[in-house]
Order: sequence, then C-alpha cells, then structure tokens
Amino acid sequence: MIKDIDARLDAILEYYPKTSVVREAMTYSLMSGGKRLRPRLLLAMLEDFGCDYKLGLNPACALEMVHTYSLVHDDLPAMDDDDLRRFKPTNHKVFGEGVAILAGDALLTGAFTALSQSSLDSDVVGKCLEILARNAGNNGMILGQELDIDDHIDHIDDLVACYNLKTGCLFAGAFEMAVVIAGKDSYQKLAHDLGLTLGVAFQFQDDLLEVTKTSEQIGKSNQSDADRDKTTVVSLLGVEQAHTLTESYFSNIKDLLKQMNIENGNLKQIIDEMMSREL
Amino acid sequence: MIKDIDARLDAILEYYPKTSVVREAMTYSLMSGGKRLRPRLLLAMLEDFGCDYKLGLNPACALEMVHTYSLVHDDLPAMDDDDLRRFKPTNHKVFGEGVAILAGDALLTGAFTALSQSSLDSDVVGKCLEILARNAGNNGMILGQELDIDDHIDHIDDLVACYNLKTGCLFAGAFEMAVVIAGKDSYQKLAHDLGLTLGVAFQFQDDLLEVTKTSEQIGKSNQSDADRDKTTVVSLLGVEQAHTLTESYFSNIKDLLKQMNIENGNLKQIIDEMMSREL
Repeated sequence: MIKDIDARLDAILEYYPKTSVVREAMTYSLMSGGKRLRPRLLLAMLEDFGCDYKLGLNPACALEMVHTYSLVHDDLPAMDDDDLRRFKPTNHKVFGEGVAILAGDALLTGAFTALSQSSLDSDVVGKCLEILARNAGNNGMILGQELDIDDHIDHIDDLVACYNLKTGCLFAGAFEMAVVIAGKDSYQKLAHDLGLTLGVAFQFQDDLLEVTKTSEQIGKSNQSDADRDKTTVVSLLGVEQAHTLTESYFSNIKDLLKQMNIENGNLKQIIDEMMSREL
Repeated sequence: MIKDIDARLDAILEYYPKTSVVREAMTYSLMSGGKRLRPRLLLAMLEDFGCDYKLGLNPACALEMVHTYSLVHDDLPAMDDDDLRRFKPTNHKVFGEGVAILAGDALLTGAFTALSQSSLDSDVVGKCLEILARNAGNNGMILGQELDIDDHIDHIDDLVACYNLKTGCLFAGAFEMAVVIAGKDSYQKLAHDLGLTLGVAFQFQDDLLEVTKTSEQIGKSNQSDADRDKTTVVSLLGVEQAHTLTESYFSNIKDLLKQMNIENGNLKQIIDEMMSREL
C-alpha cells in the first residue's frame, strides 16, 4: 500500500516543471521517508468498508501533501526554528527560507490539484474538498498551530483542544473522506470523532516518547519540547497519569471502530502499530 | 458589485473563531481596501454571458483570498521584505512572521473552503477546483513567484513568461471559472489566454507607473523595483517601447474579447479602467 502511495505521489510531482527549484524542494520534503500514516489510515478504512483502496489514492496523497506542507512551514525560523526533520536538514536549511515558504504553499495548493484529478464522482470530490479544506484550515489544523505557537497551555483540557486541532483534524480528514468515498455518509460524525481521538492519543504518545528517547533516536530536532519549555501531557500530569489517559483514549478509539463495524480490520491493525510504536 | 464581494468576504471570515489571532491577521489583509480586481473580472464576465453574477460570488472570493495570501507571503522578510502594502504596515509587521505565515496558509486553505461552500452544481465546483488549484500552484502563480525571486531575467521573453505566471494565471483563473460557471466551456482556452494577456499588460503598466510615480503615491513599499535592481519592461526596453508593447497587448485583449462576443460589455469597461489607471 505504501508503494502505491509513493508511486502516486511521484506521479503527482511529475506534473510540475522539472526545472523548478520549488518542485525540487517539494520533492525533498514529500519523498523523505515519511510513514504515510494519514494516507494509510484513509486507505485502510476504505478497505475495511469493502472498497478498492485505489479509489482513495488521490485524496490520500492530498492529505500527505497537506501534512508535509505543514511540517515545512512549521520548521521555519519564524515558527519552531528546527534544523532537522526525519534525520535530514529541514527544507529551509537546504533551499533557503523563501523557497521553503513557496514549497509549502505549492504542496498545499497541489493537494487540491491532486483532489481535482481523482477519478471519483464529482459530488464525492465536492465533499472531499469541503472535508480537506475544513480540517486543514483555520477551524482545524492551522488553528491548532496557532494555539501551539501561542503556548499559553496550562491545563490538560487546553492541551487536548490543541492536539485535537493540530493533529486530530488531519486524521479526521482521512476518516471523513474514507466514509464519503465509501458512500457511508451516515458515519461522518463518528469518523470525525475517531480522527480527533486518535490525534490526541498519538500526540500523548509522542510526548511520552520524548521523555524516554533522545532526540538522536527520534531524528526530529536538536531541541526537544522540554528544552523549549513546551507544555506536554507529561509536564502536566506526569508519566504515569499520562499513560493512563492515553490508554483511555485508545479504548475510546476501539469503541468508535466498533460503532462503525470495523473493529477487527486493517485500520485497527495500523492503529495498533501506531499505539505500540517505540519511535 | 464591490459591496457584494466585500459582504461575502466578511461572511466567509465569520466562519473562523473570533478569538483567533490568525483570523484577525487574515481579516487585516483581506479587508484592507484592495481593488477586488480578480473577483470583479470574474463577475463582470459572468454578467456579459447573461448570468446572474451572484452565482460566482464564492469562486470570486476564493480568487481574492488566493491573491491576498500571495501578497502576505510575498511581503515576508525571506521574500520581498516589504514594510508597506496599500499604505499600511504589512501583515508580518503587525502580527509577526509566524502569524503572517499561518494567515497566508489560512487564506489559501480558506479559498478552497469558500469554493466548497458555493451553491453551484458539483460538476462545476469540480471544474473550478481544478482551475483555481492549477492557476495558483506550481505550474502557475507560485512558479511565477519562483522566477521572480530567482530574477535571472535579462530578456523580454523571460519577463513575459514571469508575468504570465505571476499575474496572468490568477486572471486566467477568474476567466476560466467564469466560462465554466456560465456553461461556455468551449471558451476555456480563450479565457485562459485572455487572463495571461491581461496579466502581462497589467504588469507592464505597473512597471511604467513605477518610473513615473513615487512610492508614496503607489503606497506599496519603501523600496521601488529600481532600488532593488529588479528587471522590468522599462529597464529592458525603455519607456517608449514599453508603451508600444503594452498597447499591442491591449489590442490582443480586445481581439480575444471579440472572439467570445463580449467586446462591448462590463468586462471591457473594467479592463479599460485598469489600462487607463494612473496609480
């Protein structure tokens, strides 16, 4: 499945002029060994609903492009100012800030081109357009980024609200698009909730991993959240309570999957992998 | 018509959380007295084709949002590093670079939300999605930005190629969306050519105005293109030849309008205004 996603992303990049430095910068970040989590979540859910997952490849790639643009912009000096991402220099370290800004813009815009070029019925494309833009925009992921850079978080509810938006919304986009592609529109609310719940659980786990692994092992940054004085679930609740809370989110995830009758499928397997990861 | 555009843009901004600083920054740049050229071009063409222009309000606002995001990102220190835009401090001067980057991202994403919320048939929305993303992305406006910051332009053909992309493509987006909304899909190629031609003519005129007006009058920047050593049609050809070339573009525009049987309508009037502007 990952091979199909990578092949489609390659094909999408082919669409841009070979001479463009911005294309090179898009490619650098998009093809840098990401885990393709969001596309895989979408495609696995599609399979669990009995659909050919290839139907969802373009929307899945659109999600990965939106996720990648958000990393490129998030790493910029004016934002998190990170030098490393996935063990490699960040986009602006290689191409300069101006090109990195444009590459992020081009990935975001290109996500919508990818969506427009899918072979889905136009009413399904219309629904995916609404879902992707809403979850990625300033009621979704971007609002989460704002809360994140603002960093006035001193209560677990505020942290959950931030993680819901920052990470949950793109997962919600994956699941909401999967249900409308599968024609199971009545599940859209459940799919949205599943995305938010998984996003929070995933970020909690990230926070837990931060305190147990060195930055070298995570390959993400030369500066951990603790160095930066960022609020995390661990800084708010301590390791033990953070673990317990993460488990309760995981249990809610299983419940939501059950309500959609896909508690034993491909999606559950990917979520199990996510929740047992050590890096 | 401008009142309708502004009212719809206001309504679109209402969709975002009132507490969001990014919403405030989006509003600052989106409601800062822009001329609404791109939306007006779209709506005027719709009227010339005998349609109710209100049909096109959301796609028109989407275009204005894309245009505005491009200005916000273009003004950033890593790009053109401008302090003034439309007689006011640029977005990052007021809100800081991090928020300005997010506001640009949110305007771009919000353009696609606006498109998804139009009342047009889903097949028309699908066509508009393709048109907007293609003209705004790295085969269109963004590629133009790349050529612009790269600035290895020393021949008029390269300058035309840059202006085609940087400015022409969003005009092309306006006209292409107008023809598909009006159901005149057979005009799409002519509409695209009209956009590119008008974009180049408009930029040529901008270059001509730069040499005759002070920056205070233009209200754009404390640093003119000449100060920055930027190539313009005037620096390449001199004022007289630049005028002649601009006239020839204007004549091509009239010809293209004639081929679409709208040579005497609202659109022609707006283009006449554009081409006789003194600021």
